[in-house]
Amino acid sequence: MKSDLAESLQYLFCPGSVAVVGASSTFGKWGFNIFNRLTSSHPKAKIYPVNRSADTILGHKAYPDLLEIPDQVDMAVIVVPTDSVPAAVQECVDKGVKAAIIVTAGFRETGGEGSQLESEVLKIARKGGIRIVGPNCMGHFNTAVDLFTAGPVGIRRGPLALISQSGNFGEYILERGTEKGAAFSKYVSSGNEADLTVEDYLEFFAEDEETKVICAYIEGIKDGRRFFKLARQITKKKPFVVMKVGRTAEAARAVLSHTGSLAGSDAVHDAIFRQCGVIRVEEVDELLDIALALIRQPLPRGKKVGILTAGGGFGVVATDACRRYGLEVPALSEETVQTLDKYLPPRWSHSNPVDMAGTFEGNFGCIGNLLKTDDFDAILLIGSIGFPIERLDYAATMAEIDTGEYAKKLMEEELRLVDGLIERIDRHQKPLIISSIAGVNKSPALAKLEDNGLYAYRTPEDGAKVISYLVRYSEYRGLIK
Amino acid sequence: MKSDLAESLQYLFCPGSVAVVGASSTFGKWGFNIFNRLTSSHPKAKIYPVNRSADTILGHKAYPDLLEIPDQVDMAVIVVPTDSVPAAVQECVDKGVKAAIIVTAGFRETGGEGSQLESEVLKIARKGGIRIVGPNCMGHFNTAVDLFTAGPVGIRRGPLALISQSGNFGEYILERGTEKGAAFSKYVSSGNEADLTVEDYLEFFAEDEETKVICAYIEGIKDGRRFFKLARQITKKKPFVVMKVGRTAEAARAVLSHTGSLAGSDAVHDAIFRQCGVIRVEEVDELLDIALALIRQPLPRGKKVGILTAGGGFGVVATDACRRYGLEVPALSEETVQTLDKYLPPRWSHSNPVDMAGTFEGNFGCIGNLLKTDDFDAILLIGSIGFPIERLDYAATMAEIDTGEYAKKLMEEELRLVDGLIERIDRHQKPLIISSIAGVNKSPALAKLEDNGLYAYRTPEDGAKVISYLVRYSEYRGLIK
Repeated sequence: MKSDLAESLQYLFCPGSVAVVGASSTFGKWGFNIFNRLTSSHPKAKIYPVNRSADTILGHKAYPDLLEIPDQVDMAVIVVPTDSVPAAVQECVDKGVKAAIIVTAGFRETGGEGSQLESEVLKIARKGGIRIVGPNCMGHFNTAVDLFTAGPVGIRRGPLALISQSGNFGEYILERGTEKGAAFSKYVSSGNEADLTVEDYLEFFAEDEETKVICAYIEGIKDGRRFFKLARQITKKKPFVVMKVGRTAEAARAVLSHTGSLAGSDAVHDAIFRQCGVIRVEEVDELLDIALALIRQPLPRGKKVGILTAGGGFGVVATDACRRYGLEVPALSEETVQTLDKYLPPRWSHSNPVDMAGTFEGNFGCIGNLLKTDDFDAILLIGSIGFPIERLDYAATMAEIDTGEYAKKLMEEELRLVDGLIERIDRHQKPLIISSIAGVNKSPALAKLEDNGLYAYRTPEDGAKVISYLVRYSEYRGLIK
Repeated sequence: MKSDLAESLQYLFCPGSVAVVGASSTFGKWGFNIFNRLTSSHPKAKIYPVNRSADTILGHKAYPDLLEIPDQVDMAVIVVPTDSVPAAVQECVDKGVKAAIIVTAGFRETGGEGSQLESEVLKIARKGGIRIVGPNCMGHFNTAVDLFTAGPVGIRRGPLALISQSGNFGEYILERGTEKGAAFSKYVSSGNEADLTVEDYLEFFAEDEETKVICAYIEGIKDGRRFFKLARQITKKKPFVVMKVGRTAEAARAVLSHTGSLAGSDAVHDAIFRQCGVIRVEEVDELLDIALALIRQPLPRGKKVGILTAGGGFGVVATDACRRYGLEVPALSEETVQTLDKYLPPRWSHSNPVDMAGTFEGNFGCIGNLLKTDDFDAILLIGSIGFPIERLDYAATMAEIDTGEYAKKLMEEELRLVDGLIERIDRHQKPLIISSIAGVNKSPALAKLEDNGLYAYRTPEDGAKVISYLVRYSEYRGLIK
């Protein structure tokens, strides 16, 4: 059974050929969106449009039905009207298609007749041995082979996989993630899950070598027992971050009319997730922030946080946030005070949070030593890497020195030191969480860290929150005694 | 006493002439930063550099001491070494300067000798009748007269005033606020508050016609009784949003070494803030988000939220978030269902959250009617204004229609409808909180709303949170029975 599933999903994510049943030249239609997204992303697969009344679709020869295509079709995307879906699925079976994505809506989520139609479609698929994504979904992608039936333009290839029961919210997660620098391996909008479910994709992504962290937006779980068993196995190796919505009665009602799912008891979900090591988040930014941290940061071996800042206010804010999230902010040992004294001017705070009092020179020496000392299990660094070069621009007209040259030297020095930092993180197996205060324009040093899977967060509070999630996952993994 | 204070602060924020004592040509020094910031922002005030050993500073004739300046000096910025500060303040007194900003650090925040020095400075100032900002601060600004001794480049003139006891964190709030579209009236980094305190600036900003919302980052309050009395008066007319840090013992320790303040009991602060209508926030993004909402949004007359979305997932997420923040998400009345039926295709959700099921056409009709109906006290709109034009670009190469033209029409239609929306918000006195899913590139419609003081938030969750703060403030103001 498992190998069958893996084989079907392999056809779904790495097809040799794809047909779009209901492909259209009319801008704005789903049949246009999907076909255009597919062909303009230049996948390694061959793409065939199926349309009864057109000779060509966006420059591609169109076929009146699947059976006319003079080639094997591994995977089909179905975007015909609701009533025509059963016939389209039957055609897929007749053609020997292995997996189909039914984008069309109007099934179980509408109740009554829609539910019946969904059962009918499922029956045809089961009988014909074809696996179904959806219906009422928005597509999928696999960046490794440039295959996109969904996803905003600009998605980069990387280690995050995403399963979303909401097509719109899935696109939103992908878009907001891309803004934050996230890069993705595979994505699927799972819709009503008439056949393939979150559990199936989860099982597949667990074995996917391109995927290091699995993320999911879930409205309802079909097979709780299987989900639990799978998650418990997977989270021992791969982090699994879940945004499970429908917590409240009002939202559960909305879930039912959205994907026809039962949201289920929230307390039960909380308990299940905790027991099987699923990292449950509340908000979209948390989902992305924690997933990004899990790509490359070592898991902390305790909850003692050392805070290093370029200014006192940041330290106070970060300390409050760490304590609010259940972390410890212990004092510096006498040894660490002496070590930091070597790098900092006399006016530094001499305590944790370490306020470097406006100096940037001792920065990297301090970070290196905080990563090394046993005083702390994680380091929260605020605003002391990534000097915002644009802040110097205004001075350029007036200053008697070349500020451009000064800024360039600063950047180069930072870039030079980043490698050493990465080596230290690995050697001491201690997370270094950076809250950038540089705004939207990222410095070369922060960009280099990002290229190495080490992301900067927006605020001191977000950085503290990320550490608290890492600590909880580390506790689950038994790394904290 | 009050008029004296107002007069001194008038000299601080609207001086006819300013001296920078310790002005420098050396890039990176405070004496350079402040003087350069001042002169490059082209204030209406005259600017004089004071420097014992230079003839000119950045092209301006320098004076060996204040008394040599052949003009009245209303305000001085002092950036000389710590030990020279008392003499500099005495010089200010002798010259008849009305207010001085002491940027220099090394006073009470360092304990012992520093505290003594601070007392000495205060004694000179009190005796000479001069008011002092700082010491250990980072400057101020008044956008109305282009006077900047602090603040990141790019600050826009607008209705927010900010008082920050942390210079670095103040700059950060200003920078992050500017990123979010916030515009500011006045700012002061209040530092150790040897003389002028948060209470003084608060009293002044309360009467400032340029200021509609007062924000503050506070580590410790000097005169709790006065603060309470002032805040209780002010919050009846002007919202006052406070980020009070040093909640935990660890952070309170950090506060002491930062600005030498006593953080005080957090429970007491909570109670005081609640009783005098201060809107207390936890995080920097909350401070800015709620302040932006208070500029123009009407206060809700209850906690019933109507949610309108472009896709089902957003509705589920927003509903959970509203409930989490103590808001109600009631059902639609039969009348509202019938009204919305006129604007939406049959497949819309027919319930609250209103899922428009992918259509954009009925958008503005729905919003208008949700603002009008008594079903709700506030509307949360997610992703249905501000169509991200860049999403259409990728289609442009392949489509047989002109997507650029299509997008342009969409934008124009949105822009045309925005005016009606603003009129409805005012007429029905109901807040319309928008969560944009358009990413960093703002659409013309969202930009136009922003020009009218109506801001879009980043996520559905942030939008819900903002409404919950508006509800609490409205309760305090007695607008919710």
